[in-house]
Amino acid sequence: MVDDGSVTTPLPLAPDDATASCCATPRSALSPERADEVATLLRSVADPTRVRLVAAIAAAPDGEVCICDLTGPFGLTQPTLSHHMRVLIDAGLVAREQRGRWAYFSLTVDARPLLAAALTSALPAAGDGR
Amino acid sequence: MVDDGSVTTPLPLAPDDATASCCATPRSALSPERADEVATLLRSVADPTRVRLVAAIAAAPDGEVCICDLTGPFGLTQPTLSHHMRVLIDAGLVAREQRGRWAYFSLTVDARPLLAAALTSALPAAGDGR
Repeated sequence: MVDDGSVTTPLPLAPDDATASCCATPRSALSPERADEVATLLRSVADPTRVRLVAAIAAAPDGEVCICDLTGPFGLTQPTLSHHMRVLIDAGLVAREQRGRWAYFSLTVDARPLLAAALTSALPAAGDGR
Repeated sequence: MVDDGSVTTPLPLAPDDATASCCATPRSALSPERADEVATLLRSVADPTRVRLVAAIAAAPDGEVCICDLTGPFGLTQPTLSHHMRVLIDAGLVAREQRGRWAYFSLTVDARPLLAAALTSALPAAGDGR
């Protein structure tokens, strides 16, 4: 059995004993603190409205969307929209830039791989081979 | 208000009008149904314990972890562990294979890009330039 190569960098497990037997004790690959951070990040976007908002930003031809473009299509009030954008900004997934009257939103560089993977994720089909 | 267009497969926005002005109306890049699915998928792993479990599986040298290796390091009872693994399996992120006495868990192929991106995600630093 080979290293499947997914996820190398930040996940060192104990290579010495993890393959030794069925019941070698693996060390946790993530500290509890880091796991909390990752879970918080995932929770911030694990909301249908926020998923649609980041998808709209990701799909924008110039990589950014004016807030004036978001209220109508999503049927959101400005306060509700602002709340969702604030959650995404606080999580580091979305950046906001004020230009004149309007605020523009783009995905942060750091967020793009995660959001791209989430938005293109395959979903479990009933009865598939899992 | 326009038909939000429960649009198409991945992320095409309207290239013709989205750049035309500040306030061209973008169509939603994801249908509400697909957004629900993505949000559900993200929620399934947006839990610190489940983040640690998928990280441990991702880091395993042979890409799978025996359930017998997971209870001890994570300080989980077998029922609690089983609950978390069930959530991950139902979401299509983790596959389970029974071999003799033990169940072995691996990440599904479909889940790897998402989990790799999540586990390596950069996290917002206080006061950074977002």
